[in-house]
Amino acid sequence: MAQKVYIKDLAEYVGKEVTLKGWLHNKRSSGKVKFLILRDGSGLLQCIVFKGNVTEEVFDTADKLTQESSFEVTGLVKEEPRAVGGYELDATDVKLIAPSVDYPITPKEHGIEFLIDHRHLWLRSQRQAAILRIRHRTIKAIRDFFDDRGFVLFDPPILTPNACEGTSTLFETEYFDLGPAYLTQSGQLYAEAGAMALGKVYTFGPTFRAEKSKTRRHLTEFWMVEPEVAFNDLDDNMDLAEEFLEYVVQTVIKEKADDLKILERDVTKLENVKHPFPRISYDEGLEILKKNGVDFEWGNDLGGADETIISSQYDRPVMVHRYPAEVKAFYMKRDPKNEKLALAVDVLAPEGYGEIIGGSQREDDLDLLISRIKEHNLPQEFFDWYLDLRRYGSVPHSGFGLGLERTVSWICGLDHLREAIPFPRMIYRNTP
Amino acid sequence: MAQKVYIKDLAEYVGKEVTLKGWLHNKRSSGKVKFLILRDGSGLLQCIVFKGNVTEEVFDTADKLTQESSFEVTGLVKEEPRAVGGYELDATDVKLIAPSVDYPITPKEHGIEFLIDHRHLWLRSQRQAAILRIRHRTIKAIRDFFDDRGFVLFDPPILTPNACEGTSTLFETEYFDLGPAYLTQSGQLYAEAGAMALGKVYTFGPTFRAEKSKTRRHLTEFWMVEPEVAFNDLDDNMDLAEEFLEYVVQTVIKEKADDLKILERDVTKLENVKHPFPRISYDEGLEILKKNGVDFEWGNDLGGADETIISSQYDRPVMVHRYPAEVKAFYMKRDPKNEKLALAVDVLAPEGYGEIIGGSQREDDLDLLISRIKEHNLPQEFFDWYLDLRRYGSVPHSGFGLGLERTVSWICGLDHLREAIPFPRMIYRNTP
Repeated sequence: MAQKVYIKDLAEYVGKEVTLKGWLHNKRSSGKVKFLILRDGSGLLQCIVFKGNVTEEVFDTADKLTQESSFEVTGLVKEEPRAVGGYELDATDVKLIAPSVDYPITPKEHGIEFLIDHRHLWLRSQRQAAILRIRHRTIKAIRDFFDDRGFVLFDPPILTPNACEGTSTLFETEYFDLGPAYLTQSGQLYAEAGAMALGKVYTFGPTFRAEKSKTRRHLTEFWMVEPEVAFNDLDDNMDLAEEFLEYVVQTVIKEKADDLKILERDVTKLENVKHPFPRISYDEGLEILKKNGVDFEWGNDLGGADETIISSQYDRPVMVHRYPAEVKAFYMKRDPKNEKLALAVDVLAPEGYGEIIGGSQREDDLDLLISRIKEHNLPQEFFDWYLDLRRYGSVPHSGFGLGLERTVSWICGLDHLREAIPFPRMIYRNTP
Repeated sequence: MAQKVYIKDLAEYVGKEVTLKGWLHNKRSSGKVKFLILRDGSGLLQCIVFKGNVTEEVFDTADKLTQESSFEVTGLVKEEPRAVGGYELDATDVKLIAPSVDYPITPKEHGIEFLIDHRHLWLRSQRQAAILRIRHRTIKAIRDFFDDRGFVLFDPPILTPNACEGTSTLFETEYFDLGPAYLTQSGQLYAEAGAMALGKVYTFGPTFRAEKSKTRRHLTEFWMVEPEVAFNDLDDNMDLAEEFLEYVVQTVIKEKADDLKILERDVTKLENVKHPFPRISYDEGLEILKKNGVDFEWGNDLGGADETIISSQYDRPVMVHRYPAEVKAFYMKRDPKNEKLALAVDVLAPEGYGEIIGGSQREDDLDLLISRIKEHNLPQEFFDWYLDLRRYGSVPHSGFGLGLERTVSWICGLDHLREAIPFPRMIYRNTP
């Protein structure tokens, strides 16, 4: 394969003649010179076409290029600190590959619905491409963190016979002659089986919620990473969560500084994301709400507005632990010091980004777990395999889930999750 | 978080006292000594409990441990080349964490249906754990390969409004008020949009086929990685495929030698997986079939048996290119030298593992693509966004898909794909 030259690697080619291929991001004209901004997916490059340096045909080609036309350009690479990306190309040849007539997304303002209708083209914008590169680096940081610490990746099934947390928000499909199957909401129950087999595991895949939530913090299809560790208690779980989040955020702001600059993200707030994170109980959280004039009844779950008030007290993520068991899932272990509390923890991101991690120590007692399944009116036969994990060598264990798109939105400083995934799926949209 | 000690790290603890936690894999007795084999997910360790070294209560605990009981053991780490894993523990204390009564999977032989019914426990076997660790390392090698070469990860949607290759083998779900949505069969069409935005991308996620195939080479839910590169032609695509496959296989056999030994895999055959791979045309493939007495009519697709005959001629994967366009997908570009051929390539694995990669150069001409969509009786309105990629700066581009479970099966030398994924989904099974 002939080595292609990409814009991001131009530092190696200064003073050399190269040929690059890509699309016209933008252009301007100044009499006898055309400035073509080439976009190749790895960056932008200003290509200078002087009338005196090229044939009439080439100058004419440069003149006729329209936004998003594909073309090939040959020329000499020069360092130029004032140019976008720090390099420039003195063009000697320009060849049109294919035209682009009336490209729908112009440099002027467009409405958000129009842009999502054209998501397949909107991705070509500098801003959207930067977000997707940051998403990629975030995913890599997540995987590296667990891979480097001896976790085994454990891909749970997407098609499941049962619902992890109730059946009202599930996408259903017919599974041959076996009746309905549901798209997974969480890989956690399977990850627990994995932890009993492999010690430390993590899942990382798409999850689904058929929730009729039309908020900027909800997607119907989103990616979630879920570590699960045998012999970890709630404190260990919080230690892992803060070490993890610090690693991911610090790695991404270091490695993706350029893309964060494109987004004009103020990274000073992300630089604070270092352990230890404050750890407060739900009860302490309620104290904060009270001090801020919120009349909150013990026993309810925290809402988005409550989370924002609590998290605004701190300069880094805050871990809220020991929630009323009533508002949490059936599989969470109760606090031995207070049966009304679940050994749960939510991590609230700063700047109003809300809950990005939810986790808990799991109930490891067979009889208690069976009674919880009954209390929640869940069909015990679907959980029989899960109960086996408590029948055969049960151990204390804990884990948590981190929502990828919420994390990417927070790191990028986005208003809405829809920009944090290539093709967002929301209650009112499953196209393109 | 108190640092846990895992069996795989015992080299650092020789001569030191450590406490380990895990499950009883096996035990034997010899009068005044009990040999407990501890399993902690990272490896196996023989723990020696001498009656003279421990209290009566501890000896009694050791005596009563049953298969898969969870326990904690403290003792001195010794090097012992004859022991499993190369280390041994001189136990000073043993504590039961939780019992395991009548563990269903005993060391004796079980039928495959019984084992899959107990997949959540079967994962604890040395063989299944080794396969899953190899699966993880294979995934990491795949991601590293693309990450190190400037590809951007591009997660395509799972819920899609249209079918990539026909509608007969799709899982369908109701998408709120928007009518039916389908589980993706391939992220390729979306990856093409990604390649136009980011130059080089890869997708890596679960894909679904509601095929009524009941063979050892089919799962209804499987993971697929799909690179897509702007400006790559078919030859570039084959270069990428062979470089990729060599990297993945060589990395895994080097990094996972221990686990491959557990599987008793003969890796000498995998050591041959080095470029260049033989490249033969479909027509040349038919010559081979003819020489081997197979009466094959030009224009048909190769079946599994045909693939095995062709691949058995070579000591490494073979790339078969330029298939009859009739048997290939609508989006494949035709060979300019022969309109009846598609610029497709399939990579056939050795040892009868069949097609592990399928790819092609994509049709980049708008009018030709529209006429192909019509010929295939596909609804053009669903592909309008896809056609936009040819309307606005179309470029030559190529990509391929690699099936993860087929690759893991091949590397591990498995008889059936069902062992290559934590919880397999097949036509007759979506549990546990």
